[in-house]
Amino acid sequence: MDRPIAAVVLAGGTGTRLYPATRGDRPKQFLSFGDEQSMLEATVERAGFADRVYVLTRPSFAADVEELVPSATVLTEPAPKDTGPALAYAAHRVREELGPCAMLALPSDHRITGEFEPTARRACRVATDTERLVTIGVEPDRPATGYGYIEPGPDRDEFYEVTSFTEKPDRETAERYRKRGYYWNSGTFAWTPDAFLDAAGDTELEPLVDALDGGDPQRGFEAVPSISVDYAVLESAPNVAVVPAEYGWDDLGSWDALARVLEPDDDGNVTLGESLTLDASNNVIATDGHVSAVGVEDLVIASFDDRTLVVDKDDAQRVREVVDQLRTDGTF
Amino acid sequence: MDRPIAAVVLAGGTGTRLYPATRGDRPKQFLSFGDEQSMLEATVERAGFADRVYVLTRPSFAADVEELVPSATVLTEPAPKDTGPALAYAAHRVREELGPCAMLALPSDHRITGEFEPTARRACRVATDTERLVTIGVEPDRPATGYGYIEPGPDRDEFYEVTSFTEKPDRETAERYRKRGYYWNSGTFAWTPDAFLDAAGDTELEPLVDALDGGDPQRGFEAVPSISVDYAVLESAPNVAVVPAEYGWDDLGSWDALARVLEPDDDGNVTLGESLTLDASNNVIATDGHVSAVGVEDLVIASFDDRTLVVDKDDAQRVREVVDQLRTDGTF
Repeated sequence: MDRPIAAVVLAGGTGTRLYPATRGDRPKQFLSFGDEQSMLEATVERAGFADRVYVLTRPSFAADVEELVPSATVLTEPAPKDTGPALAYAAHRVREELGPCAMLALPSDHRITGEFEPTARRACRVATDTERLVTIGVEPDRPATGYGYIEPGPDRDEFYEVTSFTEKPDRETAERYRKRGYYWNSGTFAWTPDAFLDAAGDTELEPLVDALDGGDPQRGFEAVPSISVDYAVLESAPNVAVVPAEYGWDDLGSWDALARVLEPDDDGNVTLGESLTLDASNNVIATDGHVSAVGVEDLVIASFDDRTLVVDKDDAQRVREVVDQLRTDGTF
Repeated sequence: MDRPIAAVVLAGGTGTRLYPATRGDRPKQFLSFGDEQSMLEATVERAGFADRVYVLTRPSFAADVEELVPSATVLTEPAPKDTGPALAYAAHRVREELGPCAMLALPSDHRITGEFEPTARRACRVATDTERLVTIGVEPDRPATGYGYIEPGPDRDEFYEVTSFTEKPDRETAERYRKRGYYWNSGTFAWTPDAFLDAAGDTELEPLVDALDGGDPQRGFEAVPSISVDYAVLESAPNVAVVPAEYGWDDLGSWDALARVLEPDDDGNVTLGESLTLDASNNVIATDGHVSAVGVEDLVIASFDDRTLVVDKDDAQRVREVVDQLRTDGTF
């Protein structure tokens, strides 16, 4: 079955754990992190093999998105309610415009190395051939505790059936999963709009799916909670498949991730931007200005515009708490 | 003997250990560090009881000095060569203009609390009455290793004779000095121009003193090394007196000093500017923007303009090395 492919790039989030590079009006996908292109541009380019590329974003980012990626069609979501509602909305819009198709959903703020297209095409093929919901799985290279894990079931040649999902395990469990051949749930999906909306109709997203059919997306968004597509749909759906990624992947989710994607100096310091270090080791430094570090180790030092963050590398996830507080104060 | 008092405020330095608040074009004395006035303004105001107030600075700072303290007479030194040559030059200029007088020399970047005038007047009186070189001594409240110590000799009622000077002792020696009643050499002096130039004429500064008499200060500065007045003159002069300070004093010489002059929060963090701390303790934070600190302790985090410095509190003196490197790179 050879249906058109609609790539839907999700660009409505902010990537708060990369504060202060990210700010309320400057989300992660607009940043480049050492590359020539912004992550959004790279994502749209990577999806260029699709028959049509959509970017789904929030209204306040739409103008910037149009400027950055003029080749893409911009969709704006009625409200920011995480990936569950967003993808139901996108599926409905895409089906309206293209009819039967494969919808490839991909985050706009992940770093991919190697060839994305072969894996993505295979995921779309599985989605259209089997009407399954397909997630692209990444082989873990460490016992990360911040990701969702996929337990693969029977091998169906082009894919594995999915036996179960587990969110954010502890380190020991993550290590066991890795040894058993589990995959990370990378947030890149393929399905037909029909299959996805059918599955979503049996979940908390039902009021939204009904409202979309009734032509009132705004009311639909008001009727559902903020919820990820994993929690809302994939973890409960019976017909989920995983296609292993044949490319390199990093979500660059928090500052400590820079240590994975950049080359360290002789003291183990990783730097994005300009820095000077004296007897400082194993730090992650990122700045659009200039950072000096003396006699310190295992820190993240991030300084952008007039904002600076210093956090122990082990606490990199806690940047979220900083942003929560700044949001409360109205200064994010 | 009631001679006029000429206050000479030394404002030619940069205060490099407070980088990045200080920069090549923004020396410490122009900054306020939480007070309403800049340190230079406060110093000139403090010296206001003098019959005339001079500010000695380098040509590149002269316009800013004139703007900040229009009531003072600006002198520009022919070359930046530390306090020895600077004070010889100032003594000569002041004598030319005022004739016999007491010259009160004071740094422009120290923080004084309490009454400065009584001690300063007493120092001037001792200087004119005895023709001694007078230094104002501060009673140590800790075994600081970064200062010069003064061993007081016989008590002459208004002053002590000085038995010896010691520069930058180790901690143990500093502790012993403190117990024995030594004073810190605060860099605030009083003398008559005649007495000072006579004493300087017997030192490495002789070529400068001669050249000043010959009307060629430029050549005089070229003929002498960069040298502090302590090394050049006071430590070898036979007629030095110390007058104990009856005011509070801090040189705010490096970032860790902020912990002495600002009130800490419940976690022992001291902040100048805006900050947010989570499980962070005993840090010194200074910024003209906003700093977030998570899970870190005993750090100095200073962020101004596009520059950020993170240094272990114990290494606060090493900021000098950072600045040396930046100067080499032409980016200070």
